[in-house]
Formats: sequence, structure tokens, C-alpha cells
Amino acid sequence: MAIPYPQLFATEKAPMEAGLPALSPPLSPSPVILTQDDLKKIAAYKAVEYVESGMVLGLGTGSTAKHAVDRIGELLRQGKLKNIVGIPTSKKTHEQAKSLGIPLSDLDTHPTVDLAIDGADEVDPGLNLVKGRGGSLLREKMVESACKRFIVIVDESKWVRFIGEGGLAMPVEVVPFCWKFSAKRLQNLFEYAGCVAKLRTEKEGSAQPFVTDNGNFIVDLYFKEDIGDLKIASDKILRLAGVVEHGMFLDMASTVIVAGELGITIKHKGDHHQE
Amino acid sequence: MAIPYPQLFATEKAPMEAGLPALSPPLSPSPVILTQDDLKKIAAYKAVEYVESGMVLGLGTGSTAKHAVDRIGELLRQGKLKNIVGIPTSKKTHEQAKSLGIPLSDLDTHPTVDLAIDGADEVDPGLNLVKGRGGSLLREKMVESACKRFIVIVDESKWVRFIGEGGLAMPVEVVPFCWKFSAKRLQNLFEYAGCVAKLRTEKEGSAQPFVTDNGNFIVDLYFKEDIGDLKIASDKILRLAGVVEHGMFLDMASTVIVAGELGITIKHKGDHHQE
Repeated sequence: MAIPYPQLFATEKAPMEAGLPALSPPLSPSPVILTQDDLKKIAAYKAVEYVESGMVLGLGTGSTAKHAVDRIGELLRQGKLKNIVGIPTSKKTHEQAKSLGIPLSDLDTHPTVDLAIDGADEVDPGLNLVKGRGGSLLREKMVESACKRFIVIVDESKWVRFIGEGGLAMPVEVVPFCWKFSAKRLQNLFEYAGCVAKLRTEKEGSAQPFVTDNGNFIVDLYFKEDIGDLKIASDKILRLAGVVEHGMFLDMASTVIVAGELGITIKHKGDHHQE
Repeated sequence: MAIPYPQLFATEKAPMEAGLPALSPPLSPSPVILTQDDLKKIAAYKAVEYVESGMVLGLGTGSTAKHAVDRIGELLRQGKLKNIVGIPTSKKTHEQAKSLGIPLSDLDTHPTVDLAIDGADEVDPGLNLVKGRGGSLLREKMVESACKRFIVIVDESKWVRFIGEGGLAMPVEVVPFCWKFSAKRLQNLFEYAGCVAKLRTEKEGSAQPFVTDNGNFIVDLYFKEDIGDLKIASDKILRLAGVVEHGMFLDMASTVIVAGELGITIKHKGDHHQE
């Protein structure tokens, strides 16, 4: 079900108060131009409605998840949420959550996470995701595979018919030792899909490799065509010695919240059509 | 075929000259007590007979492989081998090979390795191995999965009916981030086999985690019973986010050379009985 925005926020507070783009008059959506960041924020705020006091929360990383973490901090400050424990998925999110006063822990202490909220780079019709443009795919996957419910928040540009369709990278975290060898083997695995493997660098055009929170490198895979069965592709990648983890999150998302120009769409795992 | 030692070395040089335990008189083996290290050396020297000039060689790590690397260095010095390029599987082997004057390279430059020689902690009847007591399982697996032929050298104590039977650790390299969580998930995976997972430490009884050449930790798994289908077990382990690699080397060994009290046994991949 596509929910127009004014309805959405009427339950909580006026859009202006929530720091969202003003849509007036309420209950009669007018053609307001929303930026991609507005859409990210709308999806993030919607996801935070699922958060309840006392929960252990997986805190995502990236420009969309950042809005959710901000919002959780806000609700804690306002006393609308209590006894939250946050499990950050990156050093960056750790810093953000700490500065907002969100109590933090880790998977060693809290091996079961009630709910995780995070963005994604691509979402396919089976709710399979590509994540990791922010470079935190490994910690995200550890936290999000440990949670009872995983809500993914995206703007509508992230919907794809198949993984890789968006032309964005599918990142693979590899050990620095002989990374060229690993990159070559990864590219060979998906030769049939026109795969190109590139080392991620600190900056566009720089030769300095990007280093993950775990001290590894990222090899970005670009596909020209559908790579086919994702579980088979996943196992093939993981079987390569030198690979630490990849950015395909298969069968993990329980709910995807998509914010688009026409409203919010919520898809649940197992749905055969949109709500 | 079990080959008694004197025959073995008659083709090359007298055992004394080769620095091996003297077995006299030649061609009539007498009851000499061989230490485990003698057996390791015997297997290693036999493996080096397969080395030819001009080869790119994977150089293993550990007490048995060390003898092979020493022997390769010796044959290079004697001019009996030429134009060898060594690909070391650990920083330790790199140092050893360098000190012996073996020209070295890596997989980035030489992605195809002609022959690798390495030890193993356990070998099962299907020539599946457990490796990694030395902590170099990841680099070993990278090099040995890139080679045309992989010769494993062991003393007879390493033969087992099933992986884990020897009561030795099956090591899993994990990222340090939330390693306790990873250890718990690994133990849970093999609960049916009475699995116990332990962090490897620098020294027995120390709290300081052992750190691999790649900056990761090792979780050692101990099994009370056969874990069953090894390929399924392998995929299950690799699918855990946080796991970098494990010590089962499945379907990789082309030849296993076993040195025992009664002589050398050579098994090739696909053999249904001993040669």
C-alpha cells in the first residue's frame, strides 16, 4: 500500500516539527518536490515507528540509516523511548550514536538483536539486498544476521529487477594479502555476466586502497547482466580463500520501507504483492 | 605401496649425506627408532623429488613443510635445481626461504603455481585435510587453491578415519570484531558433534589472543564425533559473517606422502587403495 506522507506523520507529530519537508495542507498531498535525502528521511522515520522501549537495536550505517539513528536519539531525549541498547554496525555509527547519548553494546554482550534498521544500495523483488557502499558490510551482516526483525529503508531509486541492475557496485571484502589475485578470481567467477572487478580506493582516482573497519580491502564487482541464482553466487564467492564477506544480504530483510514521490510502500518478506 | 627408506634415497644420495637418519646396511631395513621429526623429514624430502627446475612453487608452513623448504634451498645451492620461484604461505616461511636464497614472488605476480608442498594436521581417507595449527591457514589455502599439483607431507600420526578424530583443533579464522559471538555461532553449528569452540591464545593459559598474519583471530573447534558431510559443513561455516576462512582443505590435495615406521606410503587423489 502506498501511503501518502501527511497521513503518515499525522499519528506522531506535524511534519514541520519532525524536521521533515512541509506538506500542506495536511491530508491533501500537493505536488511538492522531494529531494532524495527527504525520501531517505521519510523511510527512516517510518521505520523508527517499529522501535519499542526496551529493545536491543541494530544501528545501520550510511546516509539513510543515519536519519534513523538521529530519530532514535531524538525520541530517547524526549523520553518517548526508554531502555534502548544500540548495537552499531560501524565505527562511524558508533560515534554518531554515542554523541546522541544512545546506550551502546555489542554482539558479544547482546547476541540477540530485537530489531535492526539499515539502508541498502539495491533491493530486488525477493527482498534480497546489496549493501556495503559505505564499506561496513561485514559488521552490518553480523548484526543483521543476529536480529529477529530487520527493516530496510530506501528511497525508490534503490528498487531493481535484479541485483546489479542499478549499475552499482556489489562490494566484496577481501584480505589485503594478494588482493589482485582475489579480484581476478572474483571477476572470473562472473565472467558470464560481464563482471568487472575494481579495487575500491579512498577517493576517486586515488591509488590509496579504501580500508574497512576490519583492516581489509573492498573489491567492487560490476555486472552487465543478471548473475542468476544468488545463493549459488554467494557460496561461490565465500568459497574463495581471501574473501571475507560480500555485500549480498540474501533472505535477511523482514520488511522493506520504500519512500517514493507518491508515498511510502511497505513490503514484508513472503509478500507476493505490495501491501 | 610402502617403500622402505634405503631404496628411497639410493636414487639420490646416501641417507647420511642427505642429513637423514642412517639406516644400514642399505636395502635391508633394520629396526631403527625414528623420531616423529625424522618421519616428517623423510616425507618432505620425498616430496621435493617432484620439484623440477623452472617451477613456481608454493612453500608451506609448519614443522614438516620447513624440511621441504630447507631441502629446496639445498638443491638450489647445489645447482641441482634452477629458476625456482617460491610463493611463501606465511611471513615465517617467507623469512626462512629468503634466508636460504630462494627467489620469492606472490600470487599477484604468479597467479598460477605449478606445485605446492605443505604439511597437514589431519588427513582423512578422501585426502581431505585439516590445516592451520601453525595459524597460516588462509594464506596456505590461497596459494594451494591456485596450484596445479598439491603434495601433502605428513607423518603417519596424521592419518584419521574422519576429520576431528585426532582430537586436534579445526581452526577457523575470524575477524576480531565480536569474536565471542562468532565462536558461539560456530559451536552451535556443530552442537550435534559435541563441538567446543576456543579462542586460540598466544600461549597456553595466556589471555592474549593469537593474531594471524592477516590481523585476525583463530577460533579452534574440537569435535567429539564425526561432523558428517564436509562440503556442507564448509559452506555452513563460510556463510557466517565474521568468518574469514576455515582449516578444512577439501578436494585440494593431489598427492599425500605419509612417512611411517615401515616406510613411505604415497596416495594420489582418486586412488581407491594405496599404491
